[in-house]
Amino acid sequence: MSQPAESTKAILKSYAGRYVTLGDEAFEALWSALEHRTVARKEYLLEPGQVCKSQYFVLEGCFRSYYLDQKGNEQVMHFAIEHWWMTDYDSLSNQKPSELYIQALEPAVVLEVELDVLSGLFDRFPMLERLFRIIAEKTFVAAQKRLQHMLSLRREEMLDTFEEGTLAFSDRVPQYMIASYLGFTPEFLSMIRARRRKSGN
Amino acid sequence: MSQPAESTKAILKSYAGRYVTLGDEAFEALWSALEHRTVARKEYLLEPGQVCKSQYFVLEGCFRSYYLDQKGNEQVMHFAIEHWWMTDYDSLSNQKPSELYIQALEPAVVLEVELDVLSGLFDRFPMLERLFRIIAEKTFVAAQKRLQHMLSLRREEMLDTFEEGTLAFSDRVPQYMIASYLGFTPEFLSMIRARRRKSGN
Repeated sequence: MSQPAESTKAILKSYAGRYVTLGDEAFEALWSALEHRTVARKEYLLEPGQVCKSQYFVLEGCFRSYYLDQKGNEQVMHFAIEHWWMTDYDSLSNQKPSELYIQALEPAVVLEVELDVLSGLFDRFPMLERLFRIIAEKTFVAAQKRLQHMLSLRREEMLDTFEEGTLAFSDRVPQYMIASYLGFTPEFLSMIRARRRKSGN
Repeated sequence: MSQPAESTKAILKSYAGRYVTLGDEAFEALWSALEHRTVARKEYLLEPGQVCKSQYFVLEGCFRSYYLDQKGNEQVMHFAIEHWWMTDYDSLSNQKPSELYIQALEPAVVLEVELDVLSGLFDRFPMLERLFRIIAEKTFVAAQKRLQHMLSLRREEMLDTFEEGTLAFSDRVPQYMIASYLGFTPEFLSMIRARRRKSGN
C-alpha cells in the first residue's frame, strides 16, 4: 500500500515544482513537517463539529467532502484524488467548527501538515507561502468554474463537463455521489445514463 | 469624489491590519505600487478577450463581474463594494484571455495594482504575499458558501441569505442583476418580492 519514502518525495517535489522553485532547505523542511498517514476506506479525516487543523495531500486513494443538508441528506462538496490537496478552508482559516465530513472512499495514504506547523514554515520559507497562495487561488478558480456551470449549463452539459474533467476518477466514485456533486437526484443521473447507453453515446 | 490620500491610506492600512501585521516599509511599498483610478458609471475594468493584468481594491462605488452565456444573456458572477478586492483570478493567474466583464455600477474609485508589480512586492515583502494568500482563501470560502446555498437552499432561502449578507449594498444594485447572481429569472424575483410586500414581510 505505502510507497517508499523516496518515490513519495519525488512526487511532492515534482508537484511543488509545477508552481514554485523551492530551494533544498525549504523542500526538506516541508518534507519533514509532513506526516505520512494511512486511512482506511470510509474513515473520516474530519467530521462536523471538529475544528479542522490540517491540510492533506493525497498520495493514494480518493476522498470526498460532504455535509448533511437540512433534510439530513448527504450533499457532496468536493472530491480529491492523487496529488490534490484536501481541507476545509473555512474551518481551518477561521479555526471554527467544521460542517463537513472528509471521508476516504478507498484505502488511502495522505501527507498531513498541521496549520501551526505550516504557519511556522511560512515564516521561515516565504516560497512555501507562495506555493499555498497559488494553491488557494487555483482552488478558488475551480469553485468559480463550478458555479459558472451550475448557473449556465443545462444538466446534461454539466454531466459532460464533469466527466471530461474527471476521466481519471469518475469510475472510482459511486454514481449517487456524482449525482449529489452535480446537484442531481440519483434517479435523474440514472435516467441520463440509461438514455445514453440506449443511443450508444 | 476622490478622497484625500491620507484617509485612503488609513483605509488600506486598517484593511491590511485585519489580516497581517505589515511593517512600515512593506506598507509604504504597497501604497506606492497602487494606482489611484477613477472609473465612470458603466465603465469596464475588464472585458472578455483581454488578459487581466491587475487586482483592484474598491475605495468607492459598486462593481459587478458577469459573462454572456451561450444564449447571450448576462450572467452575474460577483459584486464588489468598498474595501473588497475585484479581479478575474483565472485570467490573472494563468495570463489567459478573460471571459468576464468587470463593470462599475456607480461612479467609482479603485486602487489598482498590476500583477508584475505585486509579484515584485511579494519577493521583497513576504508579509504582503501572506495578505494575498489570506485574501485568496477567503475568496474561496465565499465561493464555497455560495455553491452550498445553490445546492441546498430553497430559492426563497437563497434570497434571504443574500439579503442578510449584503445589507450594505443590495439596494445599490438593480434587481435584475440580483436575480441573475442568484440564478433566478427577473420574473421569479419580482414575484417573491411582490408576495412579500403583500404579506408585509
